[in-house]
Amino acid sequence: MSGSSYGTLFKISTWGESHGDGVGVVVDGCPAGLSLKKADIQKELDRRKTGQSKVTTTRKETDRIHILSGVFQGKTTGTPIALWVENQDADSSKYEEIKNVFRPGHADFTYLMKYGFRDYRGGGRSSARETVGRVAAGAIAKKLLARKRIKIIGYTKQIGPYIAEKNDFNQIEKNIVRCPDKNMAKKMINHILDARKKGDSVGGVVELVITGAPAGLGEPVFDRLDADLAKAMMCIPAVKGIEVGIGFEAAIMYGSECNDPYTIAKGKKITTKTNHSGGVHGGISNGSDIVLRMVVKPTSSINKIQNTVTTNGKKTKIRVEGRHDPCVSPRAVPIAEAMAALTLIDHLMRNQFSQLK
Amino acid sequence: MSGSSYGTLFKISTWGESHGDGVGVVVDGCPAGLSLKKADIQKELDRRKTGQSKVTTTRKETDRIHILSGVFQGKTTGTPIALWVENQDADSSKYEEIKNVFRPGHADFTYLMKYGFRDYRGGGRSSARETVGRVAAGAIAKKLLARKRIKIIGYTKQIGPYIAEKNDFNQIEKNIVRCPDKNMAKKMINHILDARKKGDSVGGVVELVITGAPAGLGEPVFDRLDADLAKAMMCIPAVKGIEVGIGFEAAIMYGSECNDPYTIAKGKKITTKTNHSGGVHGGISNGSDIVLRMVVKPTSSINKIQNTVTTNGKKTKIRVEGRHDPCVSPRAVPIAEAMAALTLIDHLMRNQFSQLK
Amino acid sequence: MSGSSYGTLFKISTWGESHGDGVGVVVDGCPAGLSLKKADIQKELDRRKTGQSKVTTTRKETDRIHILSGVFQGKTTGTPIALWVENQDADSSKYEEIKNVFRPGHADFTYLMKYGFRDYRGGGRSSARETVGRVAAGAIAKKLLARKRIKIIGYTKQIGPYIAEKNDFNQIEKNIVRCPDKNMAKKMINHILDARKKGDSVGGVVELVITGAPAGLGEPVFDRLDADLAKAMMCIPAVKGIEVGIGFEAAIMYGSECNDPYTIAKGKKITTKTNHSGGVHGGISNGSDIVLRMVVKPTSSINKIQNTVTTNGKKTKIRVEGRHDPCVSPRAVPIAEAMAALTLIDHLMRNQFSQLK
Amino acid sequence: MSGSSYGTLFKISTWGESHGDGVGVVVDGCPAGLSLKKADIQKELDRRKTGQSKVTTTRKETDRIHILSGVFQGKTTGTPIALWVENQDADSSKYEEIKNVFRPGHADFTYLMKYGFRDYRGGGRSSARETVGRVAAGAIAKKLLARKRIKIIGYTKQIGPYIAEKNDFNQIEKNIVRCPDKNMAKKMINHILDARKKGDSVGGVVELVITGAPAGLGEPVFDRLDADLAKAMMCIPAVKGIEVGIGFEAAIMYGSECNDPYTIAKGKKITTKTNHSGGVHGGISNGSDIVLRMVVKPTSSINKIQNTVTTNGKKTKIRVEGRHDPCVSPRAVPIAEAMAALTLIDHLMRNQFSQLK
Repeated sequence: MSGSSYGTLFKISTWGESHGDGVGVVVDGCPAGLSLKKADIQKELDRRKTGQSKVTTTRKETDRIHILSGVFQGKTTGTPIALWVENQDADSSKYEEIKNVFRPGHADFTYLMKYGFRDYRGGGRSSARETVGRVAAGAIAKKLLARKRIKIIGYTKQIGPYIAEKNDFNQIEKNIVRCPDKNMAKKMINHILDARKKGDSVGGVVELVITGAPAGLGEPVFDRLDADLAKAMMCIPAVKGIEVGIGFEAAIMYGSECNDPYTIAKGKKITTKTNHSGGVHGGISNGSDIVLRMVVKPTSSINKIQNTVTTNGKKTKIRVEGRHDPCVSPRAVPIAEAMAALTLIDHLMRNQFSQLK
Repeated sequence: MSGSSYGTLFKISTWGESHGDGVGVVVDGCPAGLSLKKADIQKELDRRKTGQSKVTTTRKETDRIHILSGVFQGKTTGTPIALWVENQDADSSKYEEIKNVFRPGHADFTYLMKYGFRDYRGGGRSSARETVGRVAAGAIAKKLLARKRIKIIGYTKQIGPYIAEKNDFNQIEKNIVRCPDKNMAKKMINHILDARKKGDSVGGVVELVITGAPAGLGEPVFDRLDADLAKAMMCIPAVKGIEVGIGFEAAIMYGSECNDPYTIAKGKKITTKTNHSGGVHGGISNGSDIVLRMVVKPTSSINKIQNTVTTNGKKTKIRVEGRHDPCVSPRAVPIAEAMAALTLIDHLMRNQFSQLK
Repeated sequence: MSGSSYGTLFKISTWGESHGDGVGVVVDGCPAGLSLKKADIQKELDRRKTGQSKVTTTRKETDRIHILSGVFQGKTTGTPIALWVENQDADSSKYEEIKNVFRPGHADFTYLMKYGFRDYRGGGRSSARETVGRVAAGAIAKKLLARKRIKIIGYTKQIGPYIAEKNDFNQIEKNIVRCPDKNMAKKMINHILDARKKGDSVGGVVELVITGAPAGLGEPVFDRLDADLAKAMMCIPAVKGIEVGIGFEAAIMYGSECNDPYTIAKGKKITTKTNHSGGVHGGISNGSDIVLRMVVKPTSSINKIQNTVTTNGKKTKIRVEGRHDPCVSPRAVPIAEAMAALTLIDHLMRNQFSQLK
Repeated sequence: MSGSSYGTLFKISTWGESHGDGVGVVVDGCPAGLSLKKADIQKELDRRKTGQSKVTTTRKETDRIHILSGVFQGKTTGTPIALWVENQDADSSKYEEIKNVFRPGHADFTYLMKYGFRDYRGGGRSSARETVGRVAAGAIAKKLLARKRIKIIGYTKQIGPYIAEKNDFNQIEKNIVRCPDKNMAKKMINHILDARKKGDSVGGVVELVITGAPAGLGEPVFDRLDADLAKAMMCIPAVKGIEVGIGFEAAIMYGSECNDPYTIAKGKKITTKTNHSGGVHGGISNGSDIVLRMVVKPTSSINKIQNTVTTNGKKTKIRVEGRHDPCVSPRAVPIAEAMAALTLIDHLMRNQFSQLK
């Protein structure tokens, strides 16, 4: 009940801290019979891991996956799948100096207020390291979705003032910011490196496009597909806002502009001419691409002097030393994809009961 | 499991359709001993009801609350509180003509895809009429929050291009768009009436400020306070996006700008100098005001001719007759407040277990 | 969270008290498309209602069902089904005299301890009147099970020292104790009437046989089918024990006697020669009949003078006036069937995800 | 959702199989600040482990606990506690010969039916080895309960025809069957050894007495304390029946005998003269000792030739080789205590919300 579980039918429980023995996840609800290899999971962890490029932190975590249970003879057994990644080379010593001071933008203060006590080593449980478990579980969800031809494509839409103008999905994994517009990618990279040089960090926008999802996913009135996706994205560290489809632009539109008129596509399929709704009407998918965006704030850890206070309530200054991502966005892409995959598979399963069979 | 329950400890289950016998809610988890009168609930329903001003639909629903259980001698008993509002004067006949056609922007198509069958009278369960139950339950949550001096203030921040520049909370209930800027309110009203005259509708932005919430609310890593609030808002009909604190503006900020430096307020209270975070760090409240915004799309029902298709897949035109809100925002305010109240009380309860007692 | 919901996929939430406005239930999770009429539900309520024979209380409650939502054109819509039965003729005045005293065997004391306050009229929420909602919801579950040819047969196995020796299911509804052994039924009836004459009450055993359930139901390791059935039965008022299959007799058996050897039945079906397990191995149904028994204690309300104390902690005497069932068993049969039906349909739904499809 | 989680506020998720890499549990919901050492958990695992006496299996599993997360500087942090025990010396080779045959009394057949595929090594997930995680989590629950002076005492009440006549709790851990009657313990031991000699196994009854629980625990109407305890016990492998208080004896009692009259104990405490109810009225604890019993069937693995069928549906014979417990009861005691502890702590937490504070 402390909030570390996600999903209703395809349920995951993550555990672990930045500087503990490791981070992991228990996946409960994966049907028996799915072929599952370490490599299926490792490839997603590799997209998330540190040190993968010059725009990420230079820390090196190999993040090798262990499958501890739930798989026999290469197939899932229908029982809980326990996954574990050991923490390596975590140097806690440098956190000694910040144990009595609150890092601005971080959860140091709120964790102390909540728990009366905190694991100050690298943020403890509040570290984005926890998302290793999500990405690992998401890899399984992705395998299940792939069987239904549902695909989740994530990418960097914006970094600082630079907004992708092209949506060439083939480009995404070809540049280190994961941007579908290769020219804009260069500007984004320069913007990040420039900020890093000054000891600063920058924000961005991650966009997801989900293709192949059938109409009918989402459980009104509370567990709407868009509402559950909103939660899924907002529980990613650093995310401060979400849009589905047209998003905040709807504020300045008229109904006659915003409504998506129905039309007939090839194969006599009923569809909409525009997709302002982002593929969701009344909280239920309509068969069009599901489109959502989230904003990620600039990394809180910066190499500049900031004002803050000590745990004893005295004013002080802090400069957060260490190796940090100058921009969260490139590594947030696989995390956002994982959270979307977990949400989609859960709703696919829940939707089995909408109609009598 | 069909998605009509909300909350974990303070749990509500809403039921009812636009043109059925009524709409209601069962509240399970309210402690015994709370004084509860019909008037406590009625006053919130009156803020939500139709026909309250010239910018809302002219339909007249009195929405009188019945308390069917869970209250004895004026106090809650600790057992489920069943609340019911009868539907009145629901004229289903005019829906006969739309039963074979999909209204753009509405959930007609998605409900049919999901359930293979739909209650076409006024949108059935997808009607915003369902939110009566949420507002009724939210009124109880607000009473519980008031005992802890937590207050939720909702208002219209923007309608079309008009954005409130003042935050004078005393003005909110004094104008029919519920805007804290009385001059801007006039422009907003004109904008709405102008659109209505043309048979059109407009969008807007609702903002919530939650004051008095203690530091420590929110259950990482998934049930973060901001993530749960995001879901709470996204499951309100017509909402297409959410921001917490600085929101999407974070994309163009540097870390050194975006981080909220800690400082000491009067009474030696540790606080932040700015509130870009919107009162939440690492998914946990930090004791500052919690600030969030949601965009509401223009009402889907418009009195203009739109392209659409029939349930048999033939192209056709539709003009949605009837009395509809030309802008959702004013009536969305009490709904958003209710959803926030339900989320806050749930997290207040969950937070009882963070520390050993 | 106060415990008034049951089920995970087919979920019910009951509400209401003995002397409030009524008792009801919200059923969330019934698929769209099920034909549902009032009569489907009424027939089960009639089996549960008071005043049906000389061995039940003489109170007369007509218990007429209202379907408030979730059904359109005679079919379920996939959205919550709200069911309500109004309370009638509830004479609360006679409870004035017991409001300051604890009735032995009842929940008066424990409700006061728990909630600090209690609805003393007829036991309030602790009254078995609450089970109206369960039986109503169970009627829907039974309709769904019938489509899969799963049937739940409940009956009185024992009353006082009289134990049914025959299992002639055709006899069950032909006698007022619902016993499958017509000769024993007579002895049971006499035993009850004899006790009533003395102002006393008697206990009994209800047995359920579930036929047609496929192998594979039950979710190890905690949500085993037998474990969930045990909870389902133990949450019926007055139940003090549960057995599955051989039950407590297993204590004196050897493994070589207790194990059910596998064999081949007609149609090459794998089955067991004996059914000591009661149709469940490792918490999962094996395709044989599921057999369980529960003991119901003698009705707590008796017309004899008993020692007790007042709410102020003074010793006193009490004689519980009013019209009470001298034996719970006959009316407990439809309640037990309803709880089993709710449990079975939930597990049937959950089992959809055991294997990849 | 596959059933491997238990609890609502103090929630555990177990994972692991008999012959996989290990067995473990994630505990989510333990408040921050509890002192927790490996030894706290190890001592309970040692009571459960194999090879502890001549009446248990001779397999040797050291079952050393690893705490992977959630504890910092010797105290719980309020975040998930991951516990892991590695499997050792698991010799899977001997299971090759039974992979195509169903062991009577075991879950081989039902797992295959459910999942279409099974881990045949030692029963896989259906093995009682899974209970390691429960006992580990239960040790934490016990520590929390001890702070409230709630104690759970488990013991063997009956083995075969031998029923303890004395309840001398000091004797329990002094004999290898964990019986509170030392003379009867000897007879029980002989009965077990005698059965083992013949290649057979025997059943028994485990009883629990919970002292110190306050009045008010239990959430009617479904999540009654006794109903949740019934489920908690029935989900222990081999349990086939449960009784609370007087249990099945209630069937032959009169209300005037069975009701527990209220009286005044020392300190003006209101209590009952008898405790036929087993400490629970209306599903809520009344402050008396909570007493429950469960029957454990004879171990399914016996060294005798039994009839069975192959997975291809051919009749065959089987003799289950290997080292097995000739009686489950002694090792079931700590498992039952753990499940009771998990249930009690969950209800203690849930009860925090019964009354307004």
